[in-house]
Amino acid sequence: MRAASTHRLQELAQHIAGEVRGDAEYLITGIAPLDTAEAGDITFFQASSLRSCLQSSQAGAVILSPESADDFSGNCIVVKNPYAAFAKIMQYLFPVARHEPGIHHSAQLDRNVQIHPEVRMDAFVKVDSGAQIAAGVWLEAGVFVGADVQIGAGTHVYPGAKIYSGCRIGERCVLHAGAVIGADGFGFAEENGKYLKIPQIGGVLIGNDVEIGANTCIDRGVLTDTVLADGVKIDNLVQIGHNVQIGAHTVIAGQTGIAGSTRIGSHCRIGGQVGVTGHVDLADNCVIAGQSAITHSLRSPGVYSGVVPAHEITRWRRIVARFDGLDTLFRRVKTLEKKSAHHASFDGEPFHGE
Amino acid sequence: MRAASTHRLQELAQHIAGEVRGDAEYLITGIAPLDTAEAGDITFFQASSLRSCLQSSQAGAVILSPESADDFSGNCIVVKNPYAAFAKIMQYLFPVARHEPGIHHSAQLDRNVQIHPEVRMDAFVKVDSGAQIAAGVWLEAGVFVGADVQIGAGTHVYPGAKIYSGCRIGERCVLHAGAVIGADGFGFAEENGKYLKIPQIGGVLIGNDVEIGANTCIDRGVLTDTVLADGVKIDNLVQIGHNVQIGAHTVIAGQTGIAGSTRIGSHCRIGGQVGVTGHVDLADNCVIAGQSAITHSLRSPGVYSGVVPAHEITRWRRIVARFDGLDTLFRRVKTLEKKSAHHASFDGEPFHGE
Amino acid sequence: MRAASTHRLQELAQHIAGEVRGDAEYLITGIAPLDTAEAGDITFFQASSLRSCLQSSQAGAVILSPESADDFSGNCIVVKNPYAAFAKIMQYLFPVARHEPGIHHSAQLDRNVQIHPEVRMDAFVKVDSGAQIAAGVWLEAGVFVGADVQIGAGTHVYPGAKIYSGCRIGERCVLHAGAVIGADGFGFAEENGKYLKIPQIGGVLIGNDVEIGANTCIDRGVLTDTVLADGVKIDNLVQIGHNVQIGAHTVIAGQTGIAGSTRIGSHCRIGGQVGVTGHVDLADNCVIAGQSAITHSLRSPGVYSGVVPAHEITRWRRIVARFDGLDTLFRRVKTLEKKSAHHASFDGEPFHGE
Repeated sequence: MRAASTHRLQELAQHIAGEVRGDAEYLITGIAPLDTAEAGDITFFQASSLRSCLQSSQAGAVILSPESADDFSGNCIVVKNPYAAFAKIMQYLFPVARHEPGIHHSAQLDRNVQIHPEVRMDAFVKVDSGAQIAAGVWLEAGVFVGADVQIGAGTHVYPGAKIYSGCRIGERCVLHAGAVIGADGFGFAEENGKYLKIPQIGGVLIGNDVEIGANTCIDRGVLTDTVLADGVKIDNLVQIGHNVQIGAHTVIAGQTGIAGSTRIGSHCRIGGQVGVTGHVDLADNCVIAGQSAITHSLRSPGVYSGVVPAHEITRWRRIVARFDGLDTLFRRVKTLEKKSAHHASFDGEPFHGE
Repeated sequence: MRAASTHRLQELAQHIAGEVRGDAEYLITGIAPLDTAEAGDITFFQASSLRSCLQSSQAGAVILSPESADDFSGNCIVVKNPYAAFAKIMQYLFPVARHEPGIHHSAQLDRNVQIHPEVRMDAFVKVDSGAQIAAGVWLEAGVFVGADVQIGAGTHVYPGAKIYSGCRIGERCVLHAGAVIGADGFGFAEENGKYLKIPQIGGVLIGNDVEIGANTCIDRGVLTDTVLADGVKIDNLVQIGHNVQIGAHTVIAGQTGIAGSTRIGSHCRIGGQVGVTGHVDLADNCVIAGQSAITHSLRSPGVYSGVVPAHEITRWRRIVARFDGLDTLFRRVKTLEKKSAHHASFDGEPFHGE
Repeated sequence: MRAASTHRLQELAQHIAGEVRGDAEYLITGIAPLDTAEAGDITFFQASSLRSCLQSSQAGAVILSPESADDFSGNCIVVKNPYAAFAKIMQYLFPVARHEPGIHHSAQLDRNVQIHPEVRMDAFVKVDSGAQIAAGVWLEAGVFVGADVQIGAGTHVYPGAKIYSGCRIGERCVLHAGAVIGADGFGFAEENGKYLKIPQIGGVLIGNDVEIGANTCIDRGVLTDTVLADGVKIDNLVQIGHNVQIGAHTVIAGQTGIAGSTRIGSHCRIGGQVGVTGHVDLADNCVIAGQSAITHSLRSPGVYSGVVPAHEITRWRRIVARFDGLDTLFRRVKTLEKKSAHHASFDGEPFHGE
């Protein structure tokens, strides 16, 4: 991908506090993956498993670690964390386009809204009464902002995202298209076989620098808020139940669901399609493999998995069919062990006794 | 959470047909969870596991069961079903705000629509030709109502929900933001390695008092309707396939998927991230644990689970690695049992024979 | 379902290149499932397990295979692939309604858009600058088309779908309501416990004849495109990560997730709620059972499953509880086998030795 402008390698190295090896004046004109990069492109290298790709790469320059740099002879920038440096270089080469402030004539604002003059609002945006929207916020087409919602400075809301009344979003957040913040939590009380709705009168409180993926749903709390702390990153199609609390700088991949009232620590990494049951606590720094079911609290940091890898189907059916007999198998082995012990004592006798 | 108005404890007890113990004139000003409730707040107590929280609660009054009331000395309302009573109190203290009828000037109505004068339609609502919308319906901003859709009295459709042509929604339903009712079922016929679309010409029929969560999808039927009976409650991001039938007062938690033509009984409770295969039947009163896979019909009411709880990852890998050998393990144990039986007969001989 | 017009059986047979048996002049007035079809209805029969339904069906005519036709005495059309023939008959009896071209006055078009005169755009559509929209495209209410997006001829975009900037959609595609094409992939680099966003500057490239389900998300690539080849069919609420490549004529059922950079072959059939990990390759013609986890590359075509069917919960708990002891069970059995072997040699001795 061709960058908006060209940069000498030395300039990029300074931006990421790295050390140039090779031609510091080399002109970088674009960025590409290791295997398809060409002259003029910068790329990055991290996984040692791809060492052969590094040697054969046609890239103009490579961002890499000190360990990887030793046996690489091309132009490179040496840094401790090549992936983070790559992120910074991408942000530098492809800066977010400035959006002009202004409110599209079709946008509909209710009474008593407080909109900073440097807000941008595109077509078909609806803002209900009492909402407060800070400087630099961009509401794209068709965004809905409910009554008394607060949106912090610099937050970007993509088309068609909906924020229910009373929710508060921090600064520099990104809400992707179709995300729904503050829909009712799933709360019903059974009475005589029917379900009575429990009004969900809490809200959603989202910190700064949070990213919410497309079509993800963050439910409002029952009586108090559902809370996402600073720096939380959530992928697409994730479900966060009412009164969930998610600690700072935790990342959650696509299609995961966190049931109501569960507390996730900070700096956790949760894979895709994970299900976390309600009313449990996860410690800080938990890492959960994709598709796992978390059915109990996790008191210690660590890596957890419950994923069952797929097999060729006839092999898998034979395995699954055995699950049913597993409990009795344990008993059968115990019986054999008892017999064997009994047996051994009989057995031994003739020899010892002789 | 502070209520809109204050109420004497006696008044609340009458509303839920409960018995006051303590100060019947006590003034309730708000509502809060058991552990954070303060003077003036009402709360509820159900789980006996939280008995210590009950004793230490600062709540002004507690709704609880006769069993729990006996060793509680504070103000309380005694009822048989405290959770249902709590729902009623919340509905009483936080009544749904009345929405003024009226059609926003930006709403677009096609020809031949029948809109009751007491309907409210917010900005950017689109209603296609032939739609019929009954009294008290509230269509929030950006809602789409397809041709010939019928929406029953008192139904509330949150921003950006879309109802495809021909679908019928009952009375007092709630459709949350981004819900999609009546998209095409996933029907394709393979021919020479390509897929031919099977037109999905059935509709969706939704009963009364149904709630549909945010971004949930209910597909239209192939030839006949997909049907949700009265009182069904569905959480966010749920997928209901074409021609599924869901019985009355069944509840389905988030991210569950029900594949095509499956019939779910009434009064079922289905957890989150459950997958139910197509063309099966679930009896009334089935309870399914979250993340379970239902691959066959369930003919009897009961509680079912297939959830595999996560473990610390190295332990889990050791377990999963053993799955592959499970089938042969059963054979190995069988062989041992045969040997042992054979052995026993040899063994015994010398002793009996002596 | 009553068809728009009536047709003689002979005419329908010609349309699907089938052979009529029975009354070729029979008038078909509608279409219905085998078990509810009445006189005048055409239906189809495929599954041999439903043979009794075939015999008792009241349908006016049945589409069936040569094998099934032999012992059926009613009116029928005999074809090799009854299901594909049924799709064609449905398309014939229920042709897609022609939409009149025209741009609704409320639609908002930015500068430099190229809109073919035969495009239809409904209310509240927003098209950003530089977008190119070909003949016959239908953008329903509230659709968002980002900057420089290209949409091929005949594509139908249902209400509220959003296409981010730079994405390219082929011809005759269908995008259902709420689908999000081209949201940022989930790319963050960790640095000192915080996450830096990696700009997602690739796009999404979708071939011809692709169908995307309601609320499904197809993320844009990091540096290069996420690619869906011709004829791909994707159900609702599916998550396709950045830089995924999906081969031609592959079908993916609801709520499945494909993590970033994974390549799926052509002609694959992937069930619902499947999770495919990132950076793996699936061969052409792979079939994956619903709810399976694909954690490694699948190099050969075949049918794969990892689904764990639910049990009655007390039985299931007994099974799951045994998983923890599985590794040691294998060791215990090995110990028994050693003893048994040892034993056998001792055992034999007294008899041979005597």
